[in-house]
Amino acid sequence: MTAAAQPAAPPETRSTTVTTTSPRPTTLAGDRRRFAGPVDPRTSTLTPLDATQVRLTGGFWVEKQQLNSDVVLRHCEDWMERIGWIRNFDLAAAGRDQPDEEWPHSGIEFVDSEVYKLLEGMAWELGRQHDPDLQRRYDDLVERVSGAQDDDGYLHTSFGRPWQRARWSDLEWGHELYSMGHLLQAVVAAERTGTGPRLVEVGRRLAEHLWREFGPEGRVAICGHPEIEVALAELGRALDEPRWVELARLFVDRRGRGLLAEIEYGAEYFQDDRPVREADVLRGHAVRALYLAAGALDVAVETRDDELADAVRRQWEATVAHRTYVTGGMGSHHQDEAFGADHELPPDRAYSETCAGIASTMLSWRLLLADGDARYADLIERTLLNVVLASPREDGHAFFYTNTLHQRTEGTVPDELEVNARALSSLRAPWFEVSCCPTNVARTLASVEQYFATRTDDGVQLHQYGSYDVDVELPDGTPVALSVASGYPFDGRVEVTWREATDREVELTLRVPSWTEGAAVTLVAPDGEVSRHATSTVVVRQAFAVGDVVVLDLPTRASWVHPDPRIDAVRGQVAVQRGPLVLALESVDLPSGSVADVLVDTRVAPVTTPTGARVALTRSWTRPAPWPYGQPVAATVEQLGRVDLVPYASWGNRGPSTMRVWLPVGEGRG
Amino acid sequence: MTAAAQPAAPPETRSTTVTTTSPRPTTLAGDRRRFAGPVDPRTSTLTPLDATQVRLTGGFWVEKQQLNSDVVLRHCEDWMERIGWIRNFDLAAAGRDQPDEEWPHSGIEFVDSEVYKLLEGMAWELGRQHDPDLQRRYDDLVERVSGAQDDDGYLHTSFGRPWQRARWSDLEWGHELYSMGHLLQAVVAAERTGTGPRLVEVGRRLAEHLWREFGPEGRVAICGHPEIEVALAELGRALDEPRWVELARLFVDRRGRGLLAEIEYGAEYFQDDRPVREADVLRGHAVRALYLAAGALDVAVETRDDELADAVRRQWEATVAHRTYVTGGMGSHHQDEAFGADHELPPDRAYSETCAGIASTMLSWRLLLADGDARYADLIERTLLNVVLASPREDGHAFFYTNTLHQRTEGTVPDELEVNARALSSLRAPWFEVSCCPTNVARTLASVEQYFATRTDDGVQLHQYGSYDVDVELPDGTPVALSVASGYPFDGRVEVTWREATDREVELTLRVPSWTEGAAVTLVAPDGEVSRHATSTVVVRQAFAVGDVVVLDLPTRASWVHPDPRIDAVRGQVAVQRGPLVLALESVDLPSGSVADVLVDTRVAPVTTPTGARVALTRSWTRPAPWPYGQPVAATVEQLGRVDLVPYASWGNRGPSTMRVWLPVGEGRG
Repeated sequence: MTAAAQPAAPPETRSTTVTTTSPRPTTLAGDRRRFAGPVDPRTSTLTPLDATQVRLTGGFWVEKQQLNSDVVLRHCEDWMERIGWIRNFDLAAAGRDQPDEEWPHSGIEFVDSEVYKLLEGMAWELGRQHDPDLQRRYDDLVERVSGAQDDDGYLHTSFGRPWQRARWSDLEWGHELYSMGHLLQAVVAAERTGTGPRLVEVGRRLAEHLWREFGPEGRVAICGHPEIEVALAELGRALDEPRWVELARLFVDRRGRGLLAEIEYGAEYFQDDRPVREADVLRGHAVRALYLAAGALDVAVETRDDELADAVRRQWEATVAHRTYVTGGMGSHHQDEAFGADHELPPDRAYSETCAGIASTMLSWRLLLADGDARYADLIERTLLNVVLASPREDGHAFFYTNTLHQRTEGTVPDELEVNARALSSLRAPWFEVSCCPTNVARTLASVEQYFATRTDDGVQLHQYGSYDVDVELPDGTPVALSVASGYPFDGRVEVTWREATDREVELTLRVPSWTEGAAVTLVAPDGEVSRHATSTVVVRQAFAVGDVVVLDLPTRASWVHPDPRIDAVRGQVAVQRGPLVLALESVDLPSGSVADVLVDTRVAPVTTPTGARVALTRSWTRPAPWPYGQPVAATVEQLGRVDLVPYASWGNRGPSTMRVWLPVGEGRG
Repeated sequence: MTAAAQPAAPPETRSTTVTTTSPRPTTLAGDRRRFAGPVDPRTSTLTPLDATQVRLTGGFWVEKQQLNSDVVLRHCEDWMERIGWIRNFDLAAAGRDQPDEEWPHSGIEFVDSEVYKLLEGMAWELGRQHDPDLQRRYDDLVERVSGAQDDDGYLHTSFGRPWQRARWSDLEWGHELYSMGHLLQAVVAAERTGTGPRLVEVGRRLAEHLWREFGPEGRVAICGHPEIEVALAELGRALDEPRWVELARLFVDRRGRGLLAEIEYGAEYFQDDRPVREADVLRGHAVRALYLAAGALDVAVETRDDELADAVRRQWEATVAHRTYVTGGMGSHHQDEAFGADHELPPDRAYSETCAGIASTMLSWRLLLADGDARYADLIERTLLNVVLASPREDGHAFFYTNTLHQRTEGTVPDELEVNARALSSLRAPWFEVSCCPTNVARTLASVEQYFATRTDDGVQLHQYGSYDVDVELPDGTPVALSVASGYPFDGRVEVTWREATDREVELTLRVPSWTEGAAVTLVAPDGEVSRHATSTVVVRQAFAVGDVVVLDLPTRASWVHPDPRIDAVRGQVAVQRGPLVLALESVDLPSGSVADVLVDTRVAPVTTPTGARVALTRSWTRPAPWPYGQPVAATVEQLGRVDLVPYASWGNRGPSTMRVWLPVGEGRG
């Protein structure tokens, strides 16, 4: 190795916590196929790795996963125990023996799904590490859920009992299949981590029930909230049962034909306006649209339905180009939690639901596996770092449901002990009446390493950066064992060190994020060759020796981001991005205490700081006017000097504040 | 008279239809006090005129009132008959004799209020003109409504029967007092026009009932939707019964103390977050906030409560300065139909409900009577011409519920035969599930002339312009008889011709609209003196002779309107106003067929056209980008030439279209 290829000094990481859990064995009772992550297509361009093959080892992402492990999972469990959402299953189980006795159901009709998402998160967590206490709690919860299953396989605590609404009587709003979909995703996790055989049996019985009810011989119907599609497709893969994939296909192909009754928000709210394969863009309720697209892609991949896959690709492209916030957030409407029209992206009414960010990541991941195109990994990076991670508070005990890009008022302080409405506040709340986001964050963080790397027959692909190990055998037995070390997302230097020699040439593929556009990426290969790239991936192909190091150096200096001029709501404004992080201006960092009247001077380049950036701001005063429209008013400008911007995902952790991502351009306008 | 004072040629009006109805007698059974309009304070700076004292005579406003008279009232009646909302009263009446028989109630729980607003509109219509057919239909409807009143005075078709929810069991959402408030406003119209003595008796009994239920000895409670306050205060004035004013005061003073249960949107949704006299700005649901403020002002005036009046003034000022669209529209949120934060005024999500425009006009009118300040009349003008009149379709058979300032998509075509949801469309719909707007338009247009002029002891004040007659005796017996002629709102020339000599000096006060700011107003007084003004009012004080003419010449040439820079959503954009009319660009006037990519060249002054303006537009092309944020992209600019803008209120009458009020500034940016 030449001097240039000397292993560099370890990159700086923020409090490099190395986890001390005992790893799981690498195979499950000798059955290699069953140990897998949340998505495991039978055929794909890229093959996902499981939790034994990719493991976070330190730095930023371990901190986030540890917070989930230590706090968030337990927080969700405690809340649902306290407010009766878990008890609903106990009552349902007991109620079967006293069929005429009415019992008080806690929460709205789809709270079962939150328990299921918790179960899924627990299972992924158990798939990564032995934790006897967690396993005991998980087993107990599985037992309680299982007890509520009816003899015919149906399982829902809000429907079907004499004092409740009849089964399938409210397909538009009842969320029965939606809730069951989340149960089946928990079943997939139980199956693939080997943690919950009892739950797998529940899932089999439920799937058989759904096959009878909605299969080829059953009723031609769909659920108002897609989710069952993506769940059934994966269950079919996990249990190697084509009928569940076929049922998913039926649900996908039935949608868009007006099977659901008319509602106030129109059929597009639940994507019943156009068949999936004919639609050109995601529309309506964002989470619904994204779960449906993810399920449709799964069906397309499993059934080799190129037309359907192309439709999903087309919708993803149009949505990313015209209906997505700079954070990766999706959904412009509060009223119907829906996508807006193209370029209707008001930052101060951004809904950008946390669950939509998660669903978007689910969709992009499936497309990445299918196509291998780095643009999907780009959006995953943007969305994980700037939407999903914006949800949990630093202490893991409160969450944003929506992720606005412009908070104009401090809002009210959410109650830490009561279930909150989705009231607008600059502070996160511990729990919600509709509390889909905390449990969704929990299951996502518990398995987040799955988004980091994949393999092909010829090598591995690194999609997300941080500190982690990859240990996988290629199909021909070639071992790939490497350690990735990076202070990402704050530091763009990524070191990949080979821990085992490959006995043949293999490919190491590294994503070059699209935010480096215009900046060069420096790659130092093990043979010492230094090259500079600006493409979306770089590939190092060679036989690697132990200790070989590949260094990817991504410049993460802060830079201005200009919006498409058709996004009227941010015209004349710029955002600042620092590496993969979108930054925000928070009022607590301003001497004036208000983000309402600031202007940014784009003639002065932003100064990159350890975690954010510093920009030159002015404050613009105009005389108070009784009517805000008329002649242009001369403004008095006051210098505010250099002010710190913080990563968007970390805003709102220092008490009530106002905040904005898009900064109006004053002097030196953009 | 000198040459300068020669009566000018009649101003151009668009199809000057002179109504041919027979006017009502000027007094009502010898009881002068009882003949009045919707608002008649016992003391005020300005005294309102009644329908015998101010009468539209031609031009623009007669067309609008005639459309209401010929089409809208009947449209509302026919729809409510067809879909059972009127039949609810028949069933309620019949049901009293068969107390155990359940009957199907049509519509949501506050549809009674639509029937009441129709009754109110019919009464004002009958107050202006004899119309035996209308009187017969009105009497019949009064009879059917009256039959549903319970023995104790309670009247509501959705509550209180054995198969319905109990009376007052859902004060947050039940709208009982709200509906009754609209009934009492219909009672005021019946009383003041002498058209419905039977309805007045219903009102008296209902008011007595409410006094028992909610008065000083009754329950301390309020309604989730304010309206009863403004209704009771006026009923007290109309029937000369201080108890009804006192009950209104109780309802006003009880609000803001958390008497209503918590709801998802927070207590500010129904203004239960802060006492009225402590609040600084209107907030929450816009119609609720505005009705409440109107009622509070009435109470303040009647009880000489200056603190309360000041609170309402303060709220009006802050709301107009920071929370109002350029059209006068109020309400930025679709989700809760609510005001946004200060400067949160996205045009593409403007809710700007028609009813909020009407409620705003009601509030401003009360403030104008109380204070005499022309700024209130300014907002009334803006709101009537650019919000209220935007609602009805040109044929009077369909309505906008919301009044967006930027329609990005053509949307769906509303069903002309079915009740519509409030789906977003560029086309008006004939009827809605919540159909508050059509009947509110109907009652407003039926009495719209009431907003045009007032008197004091010393003269008359002309607030709104058009063609109309004023005939009033001042308290000392001095007659004021004048004819106003104008092609307003298209032509700013206003001629006031005296038809009777005043035997003493009187004051003629003319409002100078705030949109003339920067432009001079030419006034030609009868003595030939020509003066130029830029204040908010001009006053001509003299003894007038028959044939004296005062000419006010307001320049209505089109001009750019620039927004307060804190309204981020329209940064870098301008609107065009032509006289009092806000203009809009509609896609049907564009060769490209899309308003998405246009830029306006503000270096080229807008050319005023007979009803709108013509502006120089370009179309800006950029290459399609997979991700809409990054480096600024060079655009290809294509000249579109001069393109016509139309009055905002008339958009959407030429088939599906897209539309925008705010135009992005391209070359020669503003």
